[in-house]
Amino acid sequence: MKRIIVAEALGTAILVATVIGSGIMAERLAGGNVAVALIGNTAATGAVLYVLISLLLPISGAQFNPAVTLLLEKRHSKAAIILAQVAGAIAGAIVAHAMFGEPLLAASTHARATAGEWLGEAVATFGLILTIRLGATYRPDALPALVASWIVAGYWFTSSTSFANPAVTLARTLTDSFSGIRPIDAPAFIAMQLIGAVLGNTVSVWLTKDKTA
Amino acid sequence: MKRIIVAEALGTAILVATVIGSGIMAERLAGGNVAVALIGNTAATGAVLYVLISLLLPISGAQFNPAVTLLLEKRHSKAAIILAQVAGAIAGAIVAHAMFGEPLLAASTHARATAGEWLGEAVATFGLILTIRLGATYRPDALPALVASWIVAGYWFTSSTSFANPAVTLARTLTDSFSGIRPIDAPAFIAMQLIGAVLGNTVSVWLTKDKTA
Amino acid sequence: MKRIIVAEALGTAILVATVIGSGIMAERLAGGNVAVALIGNTAATGAVLYVLISLLLPISGAQFNPAVTLLLEKRHSKAAIILAQVAGAIAGAIVAHAMFGEPLLAASTHARATAGEWLGEAVATFGLILTIRLGATYRPDALPALVASWIVAGYWFTSSTSFANPAVTLARTLTDSFSGIRPIDAPAFIAMQLIGAVLGNTVSVWLTKDKTA
Amino acid sequence: MKRIIVAEALGTAILVATVIGSGIMAERLAGGNVAVALIGNTAATGAVLYVLISLLLPISGAQFNPAVTLLLEKRHSKAAIILAQVAGAIAGAIVAHAMFGEPLLAASTHARATAGEWLGEAVATFGLILTIRLGATYRPDALPALVASWIVAGYWFTSSTSFANPAVTLARTLTDSFSGIRPIDAPAFIAMQLIGAVLGNTVSVWLTKDKTA
Repeated sequence: MKRIIVAEALGTAILVATVIGSGIMAERLAGGNVAVALIGNTAATGAVLYVLISLLLPISGAQFNPAVTLLLEKRHSKAAIILAQVAGAIAGAIVAHAMFGEPLLAASTHARATAGEWLGEAVATFGLILTIRLGATYRPDALPALVASWIVAGYWFTSSTSFANPAVTLARTLTDSFSGIRPIDAPAFIAMQLIGAVLGNTVSVWLTKDKTA
Repeated sequence: MKRIIVAEALGTAILVATVIGSGIMAERLAGGNVAVALIGNTAATGAVLYVLISLLLPISGAQFNPAVTLLLEKRHSKAAIILAQVAGAIAGAIVAHAMFGEPLLAASTHARATAGEWLGEAVATFGLILTIRLGATYRPDALPALVASWIVAGYWFTSSTSFANPAVTLARTLTDSFSGIRPIDAPAFIAMQLIGAVLGNTVSVWLTKDKTA
Repeated sequence: MKRIIVAEALGTAILVATVIGSGIMAERLAGGNVAVALIGNTAATGAVLYVLISLLLPISGAQFNPAVTLLLEKRHSKAAIILAQVAGAIAGAIVAHAMFGEPLLAASTHARATAGEWLGEAVATFGLILTIRLGATYRPDALPALVASWIVAGYWFTSSTSFANPAVTLARTLTDSFSGIRPIDAPAFIAMQLIGAVLGNTVSVWLTKDKTA
Repeated sequence: MKRIIVAEALGTAILVATVIGSGIMAERLAGGNVAVALIGNTAATGAVLYVLISLLLPISGAQFNPAVTLLLEKRHSKAAIILAQVAGAIAGAIVAHAMFGEPLLAASTHARATAGEWLGEAVATFGLILTIRLGATYRPDALPALVASWIVAGYWFTSSTSFANPAVTLARTLTDSFSGIRPIDAPAFIAMQLIGAVLGNTVSVWLTKDKTA
């Protein structure tokens, strides 16, 4: 259990450090072209998800995400794992800020509060659960690449850029940079993530309930 | 059969939501640099195709494309599957527009009506069928990556940016954004897609008729 | 043999159509930012190489390259295969130009004639042969991804953008666009490709002569 | 042993030629948009790492990195291998400069001397060792893709752009271009790399000490 806790905290920390750190790097270098910044942010996030899930799946399940843990964790304490994810996420934000010489934590001023973005979070998390469940059923070896690819797509096709993760959302309230979200906007994002996750789980269960179509 | 219908509708919906949604995102962020916008659009479309085909191939064949269904579906009702694809494609356009706060459906004003683009659609769909048939013969496990890679290439090397799919073409007449096509231009695109698909099928059958060269 | 000839001609044609076509697309859209254009050109070329080698390796060996055929073809007529590659390459240039409404063939005016670029071609082809030979020895299933990745790297790290292929070089003298090369500059490129290929072959044979280090 | 030496020198040379060469190419073409330049630099480095590790892992272990050799080499002379890496790295810098018509070697003037960048190097090398050790344990076949993906992420999320390699750091003091580092700044980078590597090794050993969690 101790290793599960460490793996979930470490994985979520590196994930958040990548999301926030690559956002800062991209914003500083892109000279105002936000699409160029998002390309860098996407490449880093996709690549690190592929790495982290590959390495830590055999140890902790590589969830890094309370929405996933709530729905799919069956054997271990959900509360302990989610606590590790949240602690790791905050640590990741601190590390990212320290690397770039920013205040270690700062409230975000990035408004994300439209109905379209709420729908985006539901779609993103619906698809994430679909990817995890069907992927685990039909392509378990490709799970790291599948989850990474879903988030790569989501960064571009959902209006909210696919947070799809309550722990990451919380950490992103603590950065006043490219990837941030105002604290006041986070609860709606998290609520929509949970709704999308439950819907995704229901559809996935139905689609895979008998493996021969 | 019910699951096949749902899988084809859902897969086509997510595909179209990605194509249109990432096009809107890219156009809004790219500050007029269309090549940068196309990079984002390409990354999202390639990534989502890899995911959707991986997940849904074992359930429905992951066709998402009436040209593919017409040529390659052998066991189930082609009409029912194509209807599901078209319904899913329109639903995907609506979801994309809802996420970005656009009118849910709007006729495209994007002219795509040159002979070069018609040739582009024939080339793109010819290659798509070649990829599916030879891929299924020689590299079945890599089929999701192969189809995704073909479309990634086609977004850049065909002058029409590789629609290569009648259901997606129809849905793209319903968006007044980056990835749209005027309704009046769609029939020629679809006709060329079908011609390219038939040619691709003929060449593929000949190339693989005996697996030892 | 007939299928080998068709596969080599078809594969080289699609490869050249991609290199030239994506170059035209990228140049038209990139608004003068050549690095952005090269990103699109790179993505398309890498993706199509992965597809073409995956599909045609079992049929013809997926050489598409006279330098490779000269060194590695053991069973079939090298002359016939190289002729098919050259014919395919020219056909690919014609198709690319037709898709984009350009003159079907036109002499390139793109000067590439520095000693640095010559060295670049030798390095690029040296590495290509190393990739093919060591890849076939140690990672045969990954050969399509390996060759594609080598060219992706070469587009950026060699000053000549890694033509690394005499048939493609010839075809690129016939396009007055982004990816072209002046006819007068082609012979030196091809000579350096052959030198690099021979060196790469020698080093590869030595490195793999006994599989246990 | 002779082949191990050649493989480590050759691999490190091509790696450094790619890092420096793609940096020069990207800087020349990007018209001042550093984020666009970094996208090209990232694509080339990731692709070449995937190729080099795939090809040379069975021959020499594909370390190309004194920090890795110091920690993980068990059978052969560490000093001889590190010497080969350093010689290869310098040769790679010379080849890159020759290809682009630059002075063969030149002291870098690129300052990289903030505490944030030092932390970045520790994080980058910590993660590199984690990737190598856990990857070798749980996903040995994916090791080339995992290491390449870690560096792709690190180019964007660490403030130092993830040198993570003392031999490459040394070679990058010898280029007055995009990827360079002032000689005076190199010792701190290398020290932080070694600290990160030792920490990464300790955590990796603990996480994998018993493969059943």
